[in-house]
Amino acid sequence: MNFSTDTIPFGIFSFGESKKCLATAVDDKVIDLSFLANEGLFDDLDIPRPVFSKPYLNDFIALGKQKTNAVRDLLRKLLKNPTPDIMGAYFYYRQVDLHLPVKTGDYTDFYSSEQHAYNVGVMFRDPDNALLPNWKHMPVGYHGRASSIFVSGTPFHRPKGQIKPADADAPVFSPTRRLDFELEMAAVIGRSNPLGSPILVNEAEDYVFGFQLFNDWSARDIQAWEYVPLGPFLAKNFFSSVSPWVIPIEALEPFRVKAPKQDPQVLPYLRATDPTQFDVNLEVTLTTAAGTEKVISRSNFKHLYWTVPQQIAHHTITGCNLQVGDLLASGTISGREPDSFGSLLELTWGGKNPILLEDGTERRFLEDGDTLSIRGWAEKGGLRVDFGEVKNTVLGAKL
Amino acid sequence: MNFSTDTIPFGIFSFGESKKCLATAVDDKVIDLSFLANEGLFDDLDIPRPVFSKPYLNDFIALGKQKTNAVRDLLRKLLKNPTPDIMGAYFYYRQVDLHLPVKTGDYTDFYSSEQHAYNVGVMFRDPDNALLPNWKHMPVGYHGRASSIFVSGTPFHRPKGQIKPADADAPVFSPTRRLDFELEMAAVIGRSNPLGSPILVNEAEDYVFGFQLFNDWSARDIQAWEYVPLGPFLAKNFFSSVSPWVIPIEALEPFRVKAPKQDPQVLPYLRATDPTQFDVNLEVTLTTAAGTEKVISRSNFKHLYWTVPQQIAHHTITGCNLQVGDLLASGTISGREPDSFGSLLELTWGGKNPILLEDGTERRFLEDGDTLSIRGWAEKGGLRVDFGEVKNTVLGAKL
Repeated sequence: MNFSTDTIPFGIFSFGESKKCLATAVDDKVIDLSFLANEGLFDDLDIPRPVFSKPYLNDFIALGKQKTNAVRDLLRKLLKNPTPDIMGAYFYYRQVDLHLPVKTGDYTDFYSSEQHAYNVGVMFRDPDNALLPNWKHMPVGYHGRASSIFVSGTPFHRPKGQIKPADADAPVFSPTRRLDFELEMAAVIGRSNPLGSPILVNEAEDYVFGFQLFNDWSARDIQAWEYVPLGPFLAKNFFSSVSPWVIPIEALEPFRVKAPKQDPQVLPYLRATDPTQFDVNLEVTLTTAAGTEKVISRSNFKHLYWTVPQQIAHHTITGCNLQVGDLLASGTISGREPDSFGSLLELTWGGKNPILLEDGTERRFLEDGDTLSIRGWAEKGGLRVDFGEVKNTVLGAKL
Repeated sequence: MNFSTDTIPFGIFSFGESKKCLATAVDDKVIDLSFLANEGLFDDLDIPRPVFSKPYLNDFIALGKQKTNAVRDLLRKLLKNPTPDIMGAYFYYRQVDLHLPVKTGDYTDFYSSEQHAYNVGVMFRDPDNALLPNWKHMPVGYHGRASSIFVSGTPFHRPKGQIKPADADAPVFSPTRRLDFELEMAAVIGRSNPLGSPILVNEAEDYVFGFQLFNDWSARDIQAWEYVPLGPFLAKNFFSSVSPWVIPIEALEPFRVKAPKQDPQVLPYLRATDPTQFDVNLEVTLTTAAGTEKVISRSNFKHLYWTVPQQIAHHTITGCNLQVGDLLASGTISGREPDSFGSLLELTWGGKNPILLEDGTERRFLEDGDTLSIRGWAEKGGLRVDFGEVKNTVLGAKL
């Protein structure tokens, strides 16, 4: 990890048996914000000190952007030239545990990469009509499971469930044979809207506190059998993982790029005055139990057809109330090139084109002992904003 | 409302400007449990008094069945013959406000009534293959939106969104023209399972604290356009409502009936030794703005193909972790007879057979100003366990 003072991410850490509390990170150090708060560092900003000693970021985020950005600005200055009296706040990465930073009320997963939707459409439905009729009119999404979102580093067991072999009349009960990852970004909601009051697309960024890397682990065989007509359920709810640091949206300002032109034109509530995305490099690395490592995908946050403000405007257009701490994941981010696809389903084209590893083995889907890491960073001139990584290991199915 | 001392429901109330706290109800009275706790009434049960002064039932439920049932048993005895010293806990219904009783982490909606799934299949897909291939092998379900669940009595505005008229090339933006209710029951989860540890079907009832009446308000035209391939999203997340009292599952013991035989046989993880349901009468009443009232459906909780223990076993089979306060709704409960269907979509067969009201007007779907009430009760011999009602009024779309 190597966070510049231009990043100032926010997370939750503990040290030995200490209680969880808020932290930021610079270089290879984790900085205890509860220590700084108790030194009185944030008193001028009129923020109650206990906010920095909570086990989740939610209360901090709920202070609002004016205050959280003031904290961030103060930290940027302070941590560029730290004074000796704040050294007690510094920890090395290896000394601490990082925890789930945000307590998520509701988690929504979108489906906003055109290439991903196209790839899935070709494989599961009809190559000539890969995109469904609604896809270019709305950022299609669905509600996911919030309780099973865990932080990077948490291992999980291969899930078991119903799968229906193509040649069988009835489903069988089995560990999933098609365990997959999904390369995603997640927006952390920083401001609530009341029930019945949609968020305007041009104001939607005010409702985003920041972003995390997100892996929407998926069991493709369970999904194929269960998902018609009500969508993915058990195929996704066994585990999801996020990176430990939330990168404030303000840190991404230098990396803003124009969003792709949308054709057909969308309905007015989805039309932003100046639609933009963020240019964030994403990289997926697979490591086998034996230690063989391979970068299997290089993608970018900007490879989305639908922007985050459009996702928010759509999510709330019926009046749905977002709350501080809600997570809006982007859906799998696949670029145009085959080596930028964001899932094994796409990279191996449903298992037809296995990925060759250096040790001579191959992968169609994930095997027990595999570790999957997603890294992210934005870079421009001398400026670098890191996202860290979300990295988890697949354990064998429980007996 | 008329709760017998055999019910002992749990809810959250406030009186004037008082703080929210726990309550039960007997006859036409609401009884303040924080008052009883502060009188020392539950001290012998080794329950911290502040648990009864919380704004949600969650901490109380998390005490576990042994303690919550001990409270219930104590209250049954006490409230049959109340002593003068507890009269300070009594309020009349009209004096108090009832609030959302449970803070829901994750909300799941099932699709467990065969008649409902059949009706929808006939209307939306193919009369000859109305049930999809997976339907008789698993209790199909999907994740819903927790933040927009509100208590009975909360009004809401007709949602707006994308609908696609049959004769149009592109969607239009409009208030929903097909606003509907869905008659459901919701199980309140009372015990958590850790990630990776499925709940066995024969132990699943231990994880149910109790039940509420549930209305899964739906915008059918928004649903039809958005739901392929990832399921219902905006069509449901604008508003859901629950009855204010949670009826402990133990109160339903006398009303246990055999569950329907399932054919084909289900996989072993869904096979209970002695599958049962609960015989709870359900009744839906529509009241127009002008006051015309009509009972439009009479159904029963027992009209489900999939039992609640099966829903729980299925939900967790991949390792998904349920948490105290999660809500598992049954899906629309439609009986065999047309007058027992649990939605206007079914009752009017997609709007083709409108319901005639006494004032000469008719209803295909809900109109502004309509009030929809779901009531529930179980009755046998001299025993009656009431569920109260969930009743909400539709306001016009916001400008």
